[in-house]
Amino acid sequence: MTAAGWQGHGFTAYPGKNNDMNITLEQAHKVFHAALEKAKEMEVMQNIAIVDSGANLVFFGSMDEAWIGSIDIAIRKAKTARYFDMDTQALGKMAQPGEPLYGIEASNGGLIVFGGGIPLKAGGKVIGAIGVSGGTVEEDIEVAEAGVEALNNA
Amino acid sequence: MTAAGWQGHGFTAYPGKNNDMNITLEQAHKVFHAALEKAKEMEVMQNIAIVDSGANLVFFGSMDEAWIGSIDIAIRKAKTARYFDMDTQALGKMAQPGEPLYGIEASNGGLIVFGGGIPLKAGGKVIGAIGVSGGTVEEDIEVAEAGVEALNNA
Amino acid sequence: MTAAGWQGHGFTAYPGKNNDMNITLEQAHKVFHAALEKAKEMEVMQNIAIVDSGANLVFFGSMDEAWIGSIDIAIRKAKTARYFDMDTQALGKMAQPGEPLYGIEASNGGLIVFGGGIPLKAGGKVIGAIGVSGGTVEEDIEVAEAGVEALNNA
Amino acid sequence: MTAAGWQGHGFTAYPGKNNDMNITLEQAHKVFHAALEKAKEMEVMQNIAIVDSGANLVFFGSMDEAWIGSIDIAIRKAKTARYFDMDTQALGKMAQPGEPLYGIEASNGGLIVFGGGIPLKAGGKVIGAIGVSGGTVEEDIEVAEAGVEALNNA
Repeated sequence: MTAAGWQGHGFTAYPGKNNDMNITLEQAHKVFHAALEKAKEMEVMQNIAIVDSGANLVFFGSMDEAWIGSIDIAIRKAKTARYFDMDTQALGKMAQPGEPLYGIEASNGGLIVFGGGIPLKAGGKVIGAIGVSGGTVEEDIEVAEAGVEALNNA
Repeated sequence: MTAAGWQGHGFTAYPGKNNDMNITLEQAHKVFHAALEKAKEMEVMQNIAIVDSGANLVFFGSMDEAWIGSIDIAIRKAKTARYFDMDTQALGKMAQPGEPLYGIEASNGGLIVFGGGIPLKAGGKVIGAIGVSGGTVEEDIEVAEAGVEALNNA
Repeated sequence: MTAAGWQGHGFTAYPGKNNDMNITLEQAHKVFHAALEKAKEMEVMQNIAIVDSGANLVFFGSMDEAWIGSIDIAIRKAKTARYFDMDTQALGKMAQPGEPLYGIEASNGGLIVFGGGIPLKAGGKVIGAIGVSGGTVEEDIEVAEAGVEALNNA
Repeated sequence: MTAAGWQGHGFTAYPGKNNDMNITLEQAHKVFHAALEKAKEMEVMQNIAIVDSGANLVFFGSMDEAWIGSIDIAIRKAKTARYFDMDTQALGKMAQPGEPLYGIEASNGGLIVFGGGIPLKAGGKVIGAIGVSGGTVEEDIEVAEAGVEALNNA
């Protein structure tokens, strides 16, 4: 295999996961950074995940001392929010016993049906989602919202 | 539940995953950044993952246009390197047909047995590992090594 | 490959998973033995699992006649307790319908959200966790607590 | 639920996994102890797993500093040896490219097809299996054989 490698001569040869409606690494980093700063300010040790429009992981960071079990939850919150283009808190209300989507968390290899996952939008389109886990649900939501806001104000 | 949350009044109430022999978020970010700069310089679209001493994901970033299938491979490379405290390329030689560890990739939910995963050390101890996927194996190794070097020179 | 093998000449060449904040095999055996004695005294056939600070299995034993299905539950209880540094019974209260963490058991490949998993601490730090399954939840908790006590009194 | 619990008044109410052809906890502990002593003598950090006649985990211990990735391999070696009542090294020869069982490691959620897993027999019947991982394949086999010998000499 030559040094040129599998990717040929330019970034467009293999389009990969990116397109006009997808979050970029730069945008994801901005969202992550804003959420991290919020978590530091609140003194809560968070795991922060961002997925793209294909629900694939695009950025992730885990604060020192954050719960190990929250790594997976942060990622699943982000995926869940993108799977249904809906806040995981809103989905959670429909997933309670007796409600229309009861048991939905058993699908897709495991969803998270409480708050902390929020879609990320640009130009009215969902381009990804953020998921935060490590604090109380209220804290997770507050940190995720700081990430959303950073994208909207960019 | 009050705003104070489950984590009490400070960072020490719940020790979480961190300890003296574990990579910190700051260190992981430094490793990621160096690897990313190298990948940009080489014009290869990479996925870059860093795990801690417990083989848990601590940092991840995916460059625009990087292969979707390489997200999982980058993470598995980092985990594999930490699982055996060994370069995945070295492990791969032992995993070939007729070699002692043939078939080892079927363990641990799936290992990666080609280059691009390298342990991260500090003070002679393994504190985590980096995994890179998206280019040729040679390119992946070169980018991972840039991450390792950044930690060693820190 | 020579008899000296991959691990060089001593225990320090490859630091592996151990460190100052991790449970040792000797400690884990002590915890297991105390729990086992308690279970024998209570005449309940238990599965007893101990994980380290990385939530990796470090010790396990299954009493004759214990339920097969409880093997996995004991291991998951120990992992769950370490994932969130919390008694699985306490986590279970927050995982009920209408409570903040409803549905959390779908994360991390499957959690157990009833009693019988308890973190193991030393010097104020979580160094692992014990999980017990095979009796009633009350019996499981009693046996797990006997294990915790053995570590605290060591 | 009363103190009597689900298991009624004696050990025979729920027969569970045990029967005349199954390894007991006492036997498994003896096998483990002999293997552990051998590993200590050889100064190799091993993970040692014992499964019963149903291929269910019955005993496990991980030495301090043992590789994290070898936990899963030790357990899979024991299961593999019982699945086919055959030394994993012997199975491995048939699993090489061009041989009759090529690719068999992809079955059963992942098998291990190199040495270190050996069936445990009593009265000519397979009552379980031992799996050892953490050293070279030769070291793993030597430690596993020490466990087998302890059962045969009991």
